[in-house]
Amino acid sequence: MEAPIKTILTGDRPTGPLHLGHYVGSLKNRVQLQHQYRTFVLVADMQALTDNADNPAKVRQNVAEVVMDYLAIGLEPKVVTICLQSMLPELAELMMYYLNLVTVARLQRNPTVKEEYRRILRAPADTPEEELRELEAQVPAGFLCYPVSQAADITAFKAHLVPVGEDQKPMIEQTVEIVRSFNRTYGQDVLVEPEALIPQIARLPGTDGQAKMGKSLGNAIYLSDPADVVAKKIKGMFTDPKHLRVEDPGTVEGNPVFTYLDAFDPDVEKVQGLKDHYRRGGLGDSVVKKRLAEVLESFLSPIRKRREDYAKDPAGVMRLLKEGTDRARETTASTLASVRKAMHLDYWP
Amino acid sequence: MEAPIKTILTGDRPTGPLHLGHYVGSLKNRVQLQHQYRTFVLVADMQALTDNADNPAKVRQNVAEVVMDYLAIGLEPKVVTICLQSMLPELAELMMYYLNLVTVARLQRNPTVKEEYRRILRAPADTPEEELRELEAQVPAGFLCYPVSQAADITAFKAHLVPVGEDQKPMIEQTVEIVRSFNRTYGQDVLVEPEALIPQIARLPGTDGQAKMGKSLGNAIYLSDPADVVAKKIKGMFTDPKHLRVEDPGTVEGNPVFTYLDAFDPDVEKVQGLKDHYRRGGLGDSVVKKRLAEVLESFLSPIRKRREDYAKDPAGVMRLLKEGTDRARETTASTLASVRKAMHLDYWP
Repeated sequence: MEAPIKTILTGDRPTGPLHLGHYVGSLKNRVQLQHQYRTFVLVADMQALTDNADNPAKVRQNVAEVVMDYLAIGLEPKVVTICLQSMLPELAELMMYYLNLVTVARLQRNPTVKEEYRRILRAPADTPEEELRELEAQVPAGFLCYPVSQAADITAFKAHLVPVGEDQKPMIEQTVEIVRSFNRTYGQDVLVEPEALIPQIARLPGTDGQAKMGKSLGNAIYLSDPADVVAKKIKGMFTDPKHLRVEDPGTVEGNPVFTYLDAFDPDVEKVQGLKDHYRRGGLGDSVVKKRLAEVLESFLSPIRKRREDYAKDPAGVMRLLKEGTDRARETTASTLASVRKAMHLDYWP
Repeated sequence: MEAPIKTILTGDRPTGPLHLGHYVGSLKNRVQLQHQYRTFVLVADMQALTDNADNPAKVRQNVAEVVMDYLAIGLEPKVVTICLQSMLPELAELMMYYLNLVTVARLQRNPTVKEEYRRILRAPADTPEEELRELEAQVPAGFLCYPVSQAADITAFKAHLVPVGEDQKPMIEQTVEIVRSFNRTYGQDVLVEPEALIPQIARLPGTDGQAKMGKSLGNAIYLSDPADVVAKKIKGMFTDPKHLRVEDPGTVEGNPVFTYLDAFDPDVEKVQGLKDHYRRGGLGDSVVKKRLAEVLESFLSPIRKRREDYAKDPAGVMRLLKEGTDRARETTASTLASVRKAMHLDYWP
């Protein structure tokens, strides 16, 4: 007897092109699992607006870019359903119902949102808690509430699995709480409890050695970067700052060049050899970086090629997105109907 | 040259039958203005859920009750558009966009919401501000955000005027701020700035002399109360507590029996005569109450009669609501389309 097919939901905010951090954190899992699970991929433009309300043109422009990134990395539009958040009105309705099941205090405690606050408000990491609370109240209400919007997205597709980076785990926990509260209040088994699917390497450091790769941090290698840009970024990468001369022993841990090799080099033995040599001393950074440049180029070059093909037909890309959204809507509408029924809101057909 | 017809939006939460306080605060204005303005009357069931999430059956049951109250007081379903909030999905979408234009701090400062907090949390009026802030964080996020939901309702209908009681004035101010922010950010003149229409007698005291008549306060006379219940409630009404003997001079100010006469007795001279006599002394409470009973009975009896007729055909009442909602949706859909266009969210038709 076959087990029933499980559903995956994932998504990204269209605020810029996707980078290697996105790939390692969740895109890789999505590509690998697309034939195994029913997969929905959401371009989260409404969520992008929660901290880009004053620049909707930027969000709109990046919608097609993100879809092209998806297609370029190998998500197959006939296999996965790529869809657009703002064209699925059921998601806004679900959010509105779920807002009544979460206290303001609970949202204020969400660690992912707290970290994002710091970013948006440009607050240094050592800002005192009290000062931070005052600052937090200055963010848009939509931003405070976006974990509830994510819960609407995840539950609308009745997703079992959500491939996310480690930092997004609290968002899934928030969704689980909302699902439990909903099912307890309105009737068992209306909504599905999702699980986070966290990859082994859950977070890629930036090229500057910072813990996280991010567009706003200026330390990202994009999936759409041309070969010469990638080469230049690798050349300038942070390594072990104490590894001054080739003959000195070097440190592999926390050295982003090796983290990238771990994430992208298919030749695990070769990476191990490089690590051993680097630790002993006698291996220059430039040699390790040269290997990384080869590895990334052979990873990125087919992606870049596919992306260029899709970029020639932006109307076709948007057509694929529309078709996916139409398919997705059958699922979101069906979920909303059962939610409304459970809430005694099924007034007329 | 005729001025263009202006639009009114009003509404009520279906959490119980409507009472004289609702009538004085806004229903009277709605009935009187229905032929003069394009009028939408919204049964705000989603708003009712923000503090009744655990009892959706109660909300549902009261939807038909409130519509019957509307019809009973003389709102003409061929003239005004009576519609149901949860069946107008555009309102949830608009709310989601507007949430990005309001800070959390601004919502926390809203005086109407603050007063409601106290009611929901059953906090005494003298609760210290600091303690209250802690308590406030325990309300559902949907409750904190409901002024944004009201802004969605008002702007969806491009309402110029909103007949409300005095205590609801901060809600209209909140909407005006959102409208200005939206038009400034996304393009002039997309949304209409509403104005509050506050009646002369803006708030009816309770039968117990408390400043506000309210269901949860147990001091209300309902539009649907049978004659004997009304008579009993009037008999038990609070008057001037110092007016112990008939021959004593009495106080008219803050005496709810006289406030009710001011609000409902069409014979202004007669009321003036009663006031003078009461002030001089020699006029018993029972005589004034008898006059009030006559006045209220002649006001309520045709309402009660019409209500009984509609109550015989609840399916017909719901049909009227559905027809109104279908009509309303043409307007909310058209507003959402222009909002989405201004926000660069008009991806495909």
